[in-house]
Amino acid sequence: MELKQVIKTYVDYRTKMQALGYASYIISWDSETEAPVGCLEERSKQVGVLSEMSYSLERSNEYIETVKKLYENLDSLEDVLKVEIKKVYKDLMNSLKVPMEELVEYSILISKAQSIWADAKVNNDYKKFEPILDEIIKFNKRYVKYLETDELKGYDVLLDMYEEGMTKEKYDKFFSLLKSEIVPLVHKINKLEQSNNLFKNKLFDINKQKEFAEYIMDVMGFDKSRGLIKESEHPFTSGYGTSDVRITTHYYEDLLISSIFSCIHELGHATYEQQCNPILDETLVGGGASMAMHESQSRFYENIVGRSYEFWERHYPKLQSFFKEELKDVSLEDFYKHVNNVECSLIRTEADELTYPLHIMVRYEIEKLIIESDVDVCELPTIWNNLYKEYLGIDVPSDKEGILQDVHWAGGSFGYFPTYALGSAYGAQMLDAMKKDLDFEKEINKPNLKAINEWLKEHIHIYGATKNPDELINIATGMSFDATYYVEYLKNKFSKLYNL
Amino acid sequence: MELKQVIKTYVDYRTKMQALGYASYIISWDSETEAPVGCLEERSKQVGVLSEMSYSLERSNEYIETVKKLYENLDSLEDVLKVEIKKVYKDLMNSLKVPMEELVEYSILISKAQSIWADAKVNNDYKKFEPILDEIIKFNKRYVKYLETDELKGYDVLLDMYEEGMTKEKYDKFFSLLKSEIVPLVHKINKLEQSNNLFKNKLFDINKQKEFAEYIMDVMGFDKSRGLIKESEHPFTSGYGTSDVRITTHYYEDLLISSIFSCIHELGHATYEQQCNPILDETLVGGGASMAMHESQSRFYENIVGRSYEFWERHYPKLQSFFKEELKDVSLEDFYKHVNNVECSLIRTEADELTYPLHIMVRYEIEKLIIESDVDVCELPTIWNNLYKEYLGIDVPSDKEGILQDVHWAGGSFGYFPTYALGSAYGAQMLDAMKKDLDFEKEINKPNLKAINEWLKEHIHIYGATKNPDELINIATGMSFDATYYVEYLKNKFSKLYNL
Repeated sequence: MELKQVIKTYVDYRTKMQALGYASYIISWDSETEAPVGCLEERSKQVGVLSEMSYSLERSNEYIETVKKLYENLDSLEDVLKVEIKKVYKDLMNSLKVPMEELVEYSILISKAQSIWADAKVNNDYKKFEPILDEIIKFNKRYVKYLETDELKGYDVLLDMYEEGMTKEKYDKFFSLLKSEIVPLVHKINKLEQSNNLFKNKLFDINKQKEFAEYIMDVMGFDKSRGLIKESEHPFTSGYGTSDVRITTHYYEDLLISSIFSCIHELGHATYEQQCNPILDETLVGGGASMAMHESQSRFYENIVGRSYEFWERHYPKLQSFFKEELKDVSLEDFYKHVNNVECSLIRTEADELTYPLHIMVRYEIEKLIIESDVDVCELPTIWNNLYKEYLGIDVPSDKEGILQDVHWAGGSFGYFPTYALGSAYGAQMLDAMKKDLDFEKEINKPNLKAINEWLKEHIHIYGATKNPDELINIATGMSFDATYYVEYLKNKFSKLYNL
Repeated sequence: MELKQVIKTYVDYRTKMQALGYASYIISWDSETEAPVGCLEERSKQVGVLSEMSYSLERSNEYIETVKKLYENLDSLEDVLKVEIKKVYKDLMNSLKVPMEELVEYSILISKAQSIWADAKVNNDYKKFEPILDEIIKFNKRYVKYLETDELKGYDVLLDMYEEGMTKEKYDKFFSLLKSEIVPLVHKINKLEQSNNLFKNKLFDINKQKEFAEYIMDVMGFDKSRGLIKESEHPFTSGYGTSDVRITTHYYEDLLISSIFSCIHELGHATYEQQCNPILDETLVGGGASMAMHESQSRFYENIVGRSYEFWERHYPKLQSFFKEELKDVSLEDFYKHVNNVECSLIRTEADELTYPLHIMVRYEIEKLIIESDVDVCELPTIWNNLYKEYLGIDVPSDKEGILQDVHWAGGSFGYFPTYALGSAYGAQMLDAMKKDLDFEKEINKPNLKAINEWLKEHIHIYGATKNPDELINIATGMSFDATYYVEYLKNKFSKLYNL
């Protein structure tokens, strides 16, 4: 009886925090997609007040005591609430370990860092960014100290934060496999003579690109009554629960495939959200299980499905029907090769499927150094450039195209990058399991992806965040994470593509 | 010193309530313009939680005591805060007079009434709406009783709520002038033979309409860095403070002038908001002074400026340049007559400038009966139809096009309608004052409305809601409201147009 009351108090708090989170979601959606620039100053004040309200709920004694009490009574809670409280308790206890003043100071530092980084990037001036990056790193090292436990030390604290259960040991194993198997393959391809001028000087009407995006949404089974597509500077997926899932894209007249694959990528995230069990909507364990698990879905759809021959065998004629003139001389085979073109390039976000994890490996190596050694920030660009030479075989001509390219470190995110590569690797392992249940090549060759969606729903999506990544990959594939599936997938696909 | 602390407490509350209001604004903007239908159920829950949070702040003892304390110390407050506290105190005391349970019950009733009304309207079935309308009326009568004072009784309570200082006595005087001067004029025009087939069967490309809307925004001086235009089912203006002002419109391929005038109308509201003193942004006395004052601006721009000969003498060639083929045979004179065509029609929102106030008069007469007599709701359609016959000379063929056409009563709004007519009348009085300071016809004939905007800014907009309507019309025109300016304006314009 008393526990019932504690649960009620907890749910009351959660309801309010969720509503404030809901408000933030819509406001930030508006900011990213249409808000007039003149309103952003006022807006940041209002958003600040809303976050403070949420924060003071979360830091109230009553709430903290309520969560503790529920945690002490975990076994009396029903399943979903039990998982939720475990998670909430862990996060709350972690956040209580860091002195409030430091968190406030840090959040001010981070918001300053954004514009300093943007400015440094535009001006290709790493020196400008150096001092504040140094401060951010110092905070993160202190932060790690606050959160260290007997099991988790150093960089592992951060890795676990972004992907529960992942450690340096596991990532080291993963990346060393990539180093020994993929780096040589990339170097080999890099030496081949190849041209990629298929669409040079061609322009693709943006309204037609939009219509094709609508077509792709239907192919992928996106439920338009529970979501929408819009444009923004950088593509992303956002939303709330299973009934409001939104993606954005960006159309370029001279880059036909850019918006197609960013659409498919975001639709992968969106499908995960839309296919979660709706009874989890009100809880804190709806949505994706982890960063990497989310990324596994977006990359599964984008690369494993979306860059397959069978997929385009079905849909390329449709694309040609939109761009009759522009694509009349481009065969299916040419198109397939074009969307899988391997190129050792400088920019992570534009990297192809094969070289992408190597971009991540560079960042992972540097993060290890940053968090666990006394490396001086002034040395980071040189380290960056050397790693790009080693893994991708290219010279980095400027910091703008090198260490300054990503916003993550300016945002204080260390430990986030590796989840991108891990996500791709999860996907390949799922593919192997999926192939035992269905004829994958046949299914992606069909007019829509119903069977693929169903498999992923049943094995991944439906669980929301009620399972941790290790539990989930076990449910989906019958085993824990194993990077060999990914490496084999990449080797097979690209050896065949390049006749190696 | 102690007062300083009280002010701080007040500002803290206000800041939170404003932030919650800000959230509601963006969420409702999203709902009206793009939200997928599937998210609306979840959304209404979230919005409910946010309103409850705001409501419990407003009803907390600390807040109530704080407001009371400040009200007791009005003379020690600086000017803006003084006005704000007066207003807040009045509203708060009023809301405390009504038992909370009744308010909750009422809000449930109102939300139910929306769909019942919509259904009744679609099915042209007043009987379906009758019972809930009866309940709403009964609540409003009780509500009036709760709020009555020595000065304000009956319908006056509601009239004052929508337009401070306005009473039945004043409105009676206003409408009886319309009855004696405008009704006969309308009847006279109604008897004339006229055709209005100018655009029959013509279609106007929607993208071109959008481009013309952009042009009109520039003519009107709308600051696009502090606002935007979007589409929605019904046009409206929304926003927050002076830095975020948004309008919507609706384009119809077969109705060229519909979106043009709805744009100009909403831009009138928007100009008022954008030209308010930005130091009022954080307060509760920013934005428009009253419903009628806001409507005065939208109608001033829409009708007095936007339906003038001089305005189109300047801009019609531009419109023609967008629709070369469609408008090649339509002269400026024809166009001017077309946009001022008088027609005794059934639907208020589609009424022309001259007959519009008569539609309002019908509603005003009925509201008086509803609130102050024991009229049975089953008699209202007949009363409605008789008044349409009397004032507009037309037969109402169905309740759908009659008493069921507006949402207001289903929303519990009694006392709101008359502000629409009052707004037009304020505008004519302002025009008279404006003409003493500038050459109106010359100014609206210029490429943009700078001088007009400046005059309205200086005399109306800049004050936000720090003045009540009577103070404001006195500032702007040197006298209290006087309906004769409006009547004269209408008589002059339309006698000339129709050679009477």
